[in-house]
Amino acid sequence: MEKQLHKLKMLLAEVVDLQRSASVLAWEQQTYMPAGGAAARADQLATLEGLAHRLFVTDEIGALLAGLNQAAEDWDYDSDESSLWRFISRRYERERRIPSDLVAELARTTALAQEAWVRARKAADYPMFKPHLQKVLSLRRQQAECLAPYDHIYDPLLDEYEPEMKTIEVRAMFAAIKDDLIELVSAISARADAVSDDALHGDFDIERQRAFGLEVAQKFGYDLERGRQDEAPHPFCTSFSSDDVRITTRFNGSFLPSALFGTMHEAGHALYEQGVAPELARTGLDTGISLGVHESQSRLWENLVGRSRPFWRHFFPQLQTAFPAALSAVDVESFYRAINRSKPSLIRVEADEVTYNLHIIIRFELELDLLTGTLQLDELPGAWNEKYKRYLGVCPENDAEGVLQDIHWSMGAIGYFATYSIGNLLSVQFLNRAREVLPNLDADISVGEFGPLLGWLRDNIHRHGSKFTPRELVQRVTGGEMDARAYMGYLREKYSDIYNL
Amino acid sequence: MEKQLHKLKMLLAEVVDLQRSASVLAWEQQTYMPAGGAAARADQLATLEGLAHRLFVTDEIGALLAGLNQAAEDWDYDSDESSLWRFISRRYERERRIPSDLVAELARTTALAQEAWVRARKAADYPMFKPHLQKVLSLRRQQAECLAPYDHIYDPLLDEYEPEMKTIEVRAMFAAIKDDLIELVSAISARADAVSDDALHGDFDIERQRAFGLEVAQKFGYDLERGRQDEAPHPFCTSFSSDDVRITTRFNGSFLPSALFGTMHEAGHALYEQGVAPELARTGLDTGISLGVHESQSRLWENLVGRSRPFWRHFFPQLQTAFPAALSAVDVESFYRAINRSKPSLIRVEADEVTYNLHIIIRFELELDLLTGTLQLDELPGAWNEKYKRYLGVCPENDAEGVLQDIHWSMGAIGYFATYSIGNLLSVQFLNRAREVLPNLDADISVGEFGPLLGWLRDNIHRHGSKFTPRELVQRVTGGEMDARAYMGYLREKYSDIYNL
Repeated sequence: MEKQLHKLKMLLAEVVDLQRSASVLAWEQQTYMPAGGAAARADQLATLEGLAHRLFVTDEIGALLAGLNQAAEDWDYDSDESSLWRFISRRYERERRIPSDLVAELARTTALAQEAWVRARKAADYPMFKPHLQKVLSLRRQQAECLAPYDHIYDPLLDEYEPEMKTIEVRAMFAAIKDDLIELVSAISARADAVSDDALHGDFDIERQRAFGLEVAQKFGYDLERGRQDEAPHPFCTSFSSDDVRITTRFNGSFLPSALFGTMHEAGHALYEQGVAPELARTGLDTGISLGVHESQSRLWENLVGRSRPFWRHFFPQLQTAFPAALSAVDVESFYRAINRSKPSLIRVEADEVTYNLHIIIRFELELDLLTGTLQLDELPGAWNEKYKRYLGVCPENDAEGVLQDIHWSMGAIGYFATYSIGNLLSVQFLNRAREVLPNLDADISVGEFGPLLGWLRDNIHRHGSKFTPRELVQRVTGGEMDARAYMGYLREKYSDIYNL
Repeated sequence: MEKQLHKLKMLLAEVVDLQRSASVLAWEQQTYMPAGGAAARADQLATLEGLAHRLFVTDEIGALLAGLNQAAEDWDYDSDESSLWRFISRRYERERRIPSDLVAELARTTALAQEAWVRARKAADYPMFKPHLQKVLSLRRQQAECLAPYDHIYDPLLDEYEPEMKTIEVRAMFAAIKDDLIELVSAISARADAVSDDALHGDFDIERQRAFGLEVAQKFGYDLERGRQDEAPHPFCTSFSSDDVRITTRFNGSFLPSALFGTMHEAGHALYEQGVAPELARTGLDTGISLGVHESQSRLWENLVGRSRPFWRHFFPQLQTAFPAALSAVDVESFYRAINRSKPSLIRVEADEVTYNLHIIIRFELELDLLTGTLQLDELPGAWNEKYKRYLGVCPENDAEGVLQDIHWSMGAIGYFATYSIGNLLSVQFLNRAREVLPNLDADISVGEFGPLLGWLRDNIHRHGSKFTPRELVQRVTGGEMDARAYMGYLREKYSDIYNL
C-alpha cells in the first residue's frame, strides 16, 4: 500500500511538473514574449497540457487509485493521504472523460486567442477577436458535453474552477444580492456628490507606484525571495511552486488606484499560494482549492484590509511622502472616502465594491446565454452594452472598454467569472471569523502589523492547499455555508457611513 | 510511407516542444526566477528533459525510422526528408543507449548546480561549488560510459555538441595553432605599449549601452519582433523557435566592450537561429547543427565584422554621439586599435582574439584530465591557476576570476569548450568564402549595410538548420575541411598591422 501510494505520487509529480511548466510558458507569454513567438508557444502549451492530461488519465493511475480505495477508508479524513485520494479520484473521474487531444487543442487555441485578444483590444475591434472566441466557445462546449449529463451546461465548466458548485447555486447567490445591490447603487447615486476621487487623479510616478505597492505587499507577507512582480496587460497571479509565486500588474501614471489595489489584490492571491504546506508539493494538492476561495483571499487583502480606515491610518503618511505633490494637501479621511467612492463604471477591475458584482452578473448571464445558444456571438457586443445600460446606467463607447476588456474568454475561462462574486462573499465571512479570534485586528492593521491575520489565514486556509473542497473549507472556517448576508451587511454598513445614507 | 513520415514528424514535434519548453524554463531561471524557485525548477526541468528523452527513444520511433530506411535511400540527399531521417536516426542510436532517468537526473542536478555556481562565484568560493561539480562530472562520466566503446572518454561528450568530431581532431587543431599563438602573444607582448585601451574605460551609461548594442544587432538583421534581449549573469542565446530567439547580456558601466561585443556575439548566434527555414520547425532539424558552427556565426559578427575598420568607419560617429564625454576626443583608428588590443588576461569572455584560444586550450586540457581521473577536483583550482601562469603569464587572485568564471560546468557542459575554437577557425574560413562571392563586402560594411552578408549566410548556412553534419556543411560552403591556416593567417595579418610586427 505504501508502495502504491509512492508510485501514485511519483506519477502525479510528473503531471504537476508539466502543468507548472505550462504555467511558466503562459506567464512568459504575458510578460516578455515577443509577438513572433506566439505560434510556437501555442504548440508548446498544447503539447505540455495535452501530455499532462494524457499522463494523468492513464489506466495505471486509475488502477492505483482503485487499489488504494480500501486504505483510503482507514486513513484519517484530515490526513494528506486521504485528501490526496479524494481529490485525485474526483479529478480523475472528470478528466478521464475528456480526450487529451481536446485539452491540447484548447491550449493551442487559447494561446493564439490571447494574442488576438491583445491586438483586438488595442484596436477596439471585436470582429477581429470573434473567430477566436467562436473556436474557444465551441471547444468549451465540447468539453462540457464530455461531462454530460448535467443540469445546466454551465455546471461542468464552473466545476473546473469551483468544485461541486452548481449553476443553480450561483443563480441563488446572485438573486440574494442583485436587488439589494441595485438599491444600494441607487441610494449612493442620489448622494453622489458626497465623495470625490479627484485626489486619485494626477501625476503618479510609476517607479514610486511600483516601490510603494511592493512595500505594502511585502508588509502583508509576500516573500520576494519566493516571488516577483512583472508588468502584463492583465494583472494576474500564477504559481510555479509554493516557493515561486509570481504576480503581475499594470501601471497607470495618472490614476493611483489601478496598480496600488491591483498589487494588493494579486498579493492576496500570492499569499495563499506561498502559504500552501510544503509537504503537498508536486501532488496536485499544492495550490488553492478553488477560484472562489482564491478570490476571497485577494479581495480580503485588497478591500477589507486595503480599503479600510485602519490600513490608511498607518500607510497614508508614507503614501504622501511618496507623492507629495498630489497628496500633501489631502487628509486621510478624504483619501479613505476617495478610494471607496462608488460610481457605476465600465471597467470591472476598477469597479468599486458596491458595483463590482453587477459587472459579474452581466458576464454570468451572457455566458449562460452563449452556452445555451440563446445569444449569438454577433449579438454579444450589443447584449453587453445593453446590460451595462440596464444594470449600471453606463454604456461603453467602444468594445475595448466593453466586451473586450477582460482576458478571460480568450483563455477559455468560460465559467470563471462567477467565482469573483463567490470570493467577495467568502472574504467577508472569513474576515468576520478572523475578527472573532483576533480582537486586536484593527489595532494591528492600524500600525502596519499583519502577522496575526496572515497567521490565521495560513493556519485555517492557506496551508491546506486543495485538501478540502470549498464547501468543507467554508464549513471548517466559519462553521456554516457560504452566505450573502454577511457580505451585504458589510457593504451596507461601510457605505452608509461613507455616504451618510 | 507518407503516413509513416507524418507519424514520425508528429512524435518528433512533441519531443521538440518539450525540449523548447525546457529552454524557456532554463532561460527564465537565468533571467528572472527568484532564488526560492530553484528546487521546483530543477524538478520541472528534470521532468521535461527526462520525458522528452523517454518519448524520443521509444520502440515506436525506432520502428518508424527502420520502416523508412528503404525510402530514405530514394530521397534526394539534400531533401528535408533525407536529412531528417539521417539526423534523427543518428541521434536515436545515441540517445537510445542513455537511460531517460539519467537524463532527468542530469537536468535536475545541473539546474541546482547553476544556482550554486552563481552563489559560489559571488563568494569566490570554489569549495562551495565543488560537491555540485563532483555530481555533474560523475553523471557526465556515466553518460559517456553508456556510449562506450570510444577512443577517448571525451569523444561521446564532444559528439553531443559537435557531431562526428573526435578528441584526436581537437588535439590536432590545438597542436596546429598552439605554438603559433604563443609566439604571436610573445611578439605582441614585446610591443605592448603600441596599443592602449584607456578609451574603453570610463563612465558608460548602461541604458545607452543597451540602446546602442540593440541598434547594431538590429542593423545586423536581428529581428526584435522575433526575439528580445534580457540581462543574465552569463550572456547566452537560446531559441524557443526560429520566430522566438532570445539573447542575454550583462553590462559593465565602466568598461564599454563587455556588453557591446557580447551583444554582437549573441546576436550572431541569434541570426543563425532566426534564419533556420520555417519548414524545419518542430522536427529537431530546426536549430544550428553544432556549437562549433554556431560559434562561427557569433565570432564572425563579433570579431570579423564588429572589430573591423570598415564597421567602425560607419558606427564610430554614432558611438561618439552616445558617449561624448568618454569618446569625443578619441579618433576612430585609436578606437579600432583599442578594441583589438591583445593582452593576456584572466577572463575568457573578455579575451582578445589572439589570446582567446589559449583560454580554451586550458579548459580542454583540464576537462580531459578530470574525465580520465588524472586530475582530482581538489586539485582543479591549483591546476587552473598553474596553466594560466604557464600559457598566459597571469594568475587569478581568487576563484571567481579563475576556475569559477564560466557557467558551463555547472550546466553539465563538459566537452563544450573546444567548440569555441572550432568556431573561431570556421568563422574565418566562412568569411573568406563570403568575400569571394561578395567583392563589395567591406564597402557595404563601411556604410552599415549587412544585408548581402546576412543573405549569403542565410542561404549557405542558416536556413539548413541541422540538415547537414558540420563536416558536410563546411565542405559545401568552403569546398574543403576545417583548417587552422586561414585563421592563423587572419590573426597574423590583423595583428602585424596593429602592432607593426
